[in-house]
Parts: sequence; C-alpha cells; structure tokens
Amino acid sequence: MASHPFDAAVRLRPAGEHFYGAETSEPYGNFVGPFGGITAAIAVRAMLLHPLRRGIPLSLTLHFAAPIRDGSFLVRAAPQRTNRSTQHWRLELAQDGAVAIFGSALWGVRRSAWSSRELEPPPVPQPEALARADGSGREPCVERYEMRFVEGGFPTEWHGADTGSSVTRLWVRDDPPRPLDFGSLAALSDVFFPRIWRRRPRKVPVGTVVMTLHFHATPESLARAGEDFLLGSIQSHGFREGYCDQTAHLWNRAGELLLTAHQVAYYRQ
Amino acid sequence: MASHPFDAAVRLRPAGEHFYGAETSEPYGNFVGPFGGITAAIAVRAMLLHPLRRGIPLSLTLHFAAPIRDGSFLVRAAPQRTNRSTQHWRLELAQDGAVAIFGSALWGVRRSAWSSRELEPPPVPQPEALARADGSGREPCVERYEMRFVEGGFPTEWHGADTGSSVTRLWVRDDPPRPLDFGSLAALSDVFFPRIWRRRPRKVPVGTVVMTLHFHATPESLARAGEDFLLGSIQSHGFREGYCDQTAHLWNRAGELLLTAHQVAYYRQ
Repeated sequence: MASHPFDAAVRLRPAGEHFYGAETSEPYGNFVGPFGGITAAIAVRAMLLHPLRRGIPLSLTLHFAAPIRDGSFLVRAAPQRTNRSTQHWRLELAQDGAVAIFGSALWGVRRSAWSSRELEPPPVPQPEALARADGSGREPCVERYEMRFVEGGFPTEWHGADTGSSVTRLWVRDDPPRPLDFGSLAALSDVFFPRIWRRRPRKVPVGTVVMTLHFHATPESLARAGEDFLLGSIQSHGFREGYCDQTAHLWNRAGELLLTAHQVAYYRQ
Repeated sequence: MASHPFDAAVRLRPAGEHFYGAETSEPYGNFVGPFGGITAAIAVRAMLLHPLRRGIPLSLTLHFAAPIRDGSFLVRAAPQRTNRSTQHWRLELAQDGAVAIFGSALWGVRRSAWSSRELEPPPVPQPEALARADGSGREPCVERYEMRFVEGGFPTEWHGADTGSSVTRLWVRDDPPRPLDFGSLAALSDVFFPRIWRRRPRKVPVGTVVMTLHFHATPESLARAGEDFLLGSIQSHGFREGYCDQTAHLWNRAGELLLTAHQVAYYRQ
C-alpha cells in the first residue's frame, strides 16, 4: 500500500540531538514555498518524535520569517523547560544555515478535570448535502483537501467590492481520507484561503506571517474524528494598514472542539 | 510630578547588546509573581528601546514557563530577522541565570491599504452609566485598573455551578488614568480574571501558560483612546482536561479595534 502524501510530507530523519532532516513536498506546495499547514505538521512531528517529549500538544506558534525553497531543510525542536505537567519548546526551521521559520510550543499532560466545550459549532447542513468544491487549477496543496463549503467559498469573481464579511464555513478532510492525528489537525487549520480575498475579492498578494494554534483535541476526540470531515469556521477581526488577523475553529462531526487557530497575515490592497 | 506606577513598573536599564535589566514592581503583583500584563508591557518596552527596532508591534507571544520571584531579572530582546516591512523577535526573561519566560514578537511598518474593522464592538451602556467594580482585597494588580463591568463581573459567590457562559464585558482603564501606548494596551489585555471562575465559580488554582497578542492599534488610534476607557470583551472557547483557551478584544470608545488577545490557561477543578 502506498503511503499517504501527508505521511511522506512530514517524514523526518533524526540528525543529532534536537535536530531532524526534512524535505519539502511538491504535493503540499503553495504560492511561495510549502503550505503553512504542512510546516506546522512537521513541527508537531519533530516534537512527537523527540525522546524527551511529555504529553500532547497544547499550543504552537510559528513565525514565517523567510520563505523555504524546494529542497531539504533542518528542523530543530528543543525543550526549553519541562515542568511537572507542562513542557515548553523552542522551534527552528533552517535552510542553508539561516533560520527561515521559528517559534515555540507548549505540550502538556492532561488530567481529569471538569470539562466543557463553550463555543458551539454553528448550525450547518451535513457534508453529504453539500457539493464538493473544485480546487483544480489552484496551488497544489488545495488538492490535498476535500472541501465542502457551507458559506464563503472560493471567490468566483475578483470584483474588489466589500462583501462585508470574511466568514467561511466548510466541511473539510484530507484527500484521500486519512485518520486524524495532531499533525494533520494542525495542517487542517490552515486550509482557509486568504481572508482579504473573501472580504474584498481582489487577487492581491497575501501571506501568513505568524500562526498560533491552541489544541483542544485529545487522543479520544481525534479517534472519534477518524477519517471523517471536520467542520471549520473562520473570521477575520479586522484589516488594518497591510495586516489582518483571524481566528478559526475546527470541530469533529460529534461537535467536539478540536482546535482554535489564529493568524496574522499581510496583504496589499 | 510623581511618575505613574505603570511607567515605574516597565522601567528598563540597558545592559549590553539585546539585554535590559528590570525589577518586579509590587503594585503590579499577582497570585504568583508579576501580573502577566505587566510582563507583556515590559517585553514591548524592551523592543521599543532597541536601536534596531523597525515599525510598531503586530504580535507578541509569551510562554510563562516558570514564575518570576520578586526582585531583579534580565530581559533579552533580539531581532531574529528583519525584512523590508516586518521584523521578527526572540524574547527571554531570565532570573538567576534561568529562563522563566520566553517568546517571540512581530513588528512591522504599516502601509497605506484598504482597512476595515470587521468585528463590531458589542452594544453596551457607556461607562458613565455603570458602577465601578470594587477591586480591594484582591491581588495588587487589580487595583491598578478602573473596571466597570457590563456583564460577567467578579464572582460574588463561589457556588461551583455551571453558569453556562465565560463571557465578560467591561470598560477598563489605568488607575490613575494614563495616555494609552502599546505597552499599556498589552497590559490591559490581561485584566480579565480567570475564565473558569466565570464559567464555574470555584476558587481553584489557575494560571496563564501562553499568551498571544495581535495588535491592530496604530499611533493614531492609541491617541484617540488617550486616557479614556477601553471596551473589553472575552470568552473561552472550551475547558478541556485541565486547560482552556480564550480570546479577548479591546476597542477604544470610538469603536476602533485595538487588540486581539489569546491565552491558554491551566485550571484545576
């Protein structure tokens, strides 16, 4: 059985204490360099493989400071501090000796405690009742996902008028389907096309500058998601002089909140 | 004229390239160590003072990996990469040679571009129509702020029942009033008491583990805020096995979005 393109894209080769060798993956290419979501998944994978790792991911912040070119790069994932139930990490992705992407992460041991989702998933039709979006002709990474938009799909006309909303809601999963794990969940957080294109459809240059993920998922809620669709909802809070920020949420079909994802992006208009 | 306690609390002494000496400030003390908001303000101040700084703050992430004890500590703020319009930073706060708090930041040069707030401030009464909350008997940092709650004020009874909501809305400003700047805005993002106390009022141990701020403010919108109240709104997305996350927004009275603030906190229940 051929492995899933996702597993090939996040493959890491141990390269000394805290270091891993990685390769960019054509199927997850984006405008400039790799899809940000696959980069997040690679960071998660490096920590998961680390012999000192404790617990499961709780947060991840990545700065996209410079582009990664096609080819090999080096990942450094090192625990900065390990407490009784939390572990803080430093992360760096470097190419040709220069750090291009860097950030930090929090892992932790979850414990029995009163728990409750507060943010309810929006009321939407089930994915079976929705048409599959056509991602062909777009960046390669778009075709790695099956997307069924409820609201705010790909712009069909670049009219440049203010639509008054940056909201998108969709059902989404890996294509071909693949059992959800922390890495693929991190990648799925980044499937939303640039919010300025939704709010004011002009094909202007855009890019994620900083990404912060908060994981609510546990091994149990990941297993309940399995290969099924996740419900995603995203909105920008504001567009201000070249920069905007946005918050996305992903739930499994059972309505469990799995991830909150925040980004700052630049845009030209 | 005596200086404002905020200015005293964020005072930094240059201590070699990228380094600044700092002191904890009793008026901004919290449960364990300094108020997280004042720590964020100190980080902003270190970058503001740095001779290589470009632009204004766009994002800030801080990991509270270990407590800072009363006394002196060292701040390291170093540009990791400076691009044409963005600058990425590494941050560390260390005491007795050990890093206690660390993180990263993004600064940038804003440019003329189509701009719009998307997130509307909630409809609320003006602060003059609301009673000032009594913060006496709480942690010292609470008394540094004038808070007028619209909804979700300090718990008055620790009944432990699920209130079904973690929402708090309030008008807030420095006490005594002080013209808003990027540092005091960062500090104001952290004035919200722990969300688990709002959702299910039991006086359980809580603490911020990671904080991420996205700045929408510009020098112009800060000036329009001046010494006036900001409107703050916060909600948790979910409470899951010992960890919860939350998103807050701050607007000036003119309705301009100034800041989005995200946190992961631990809680015991």
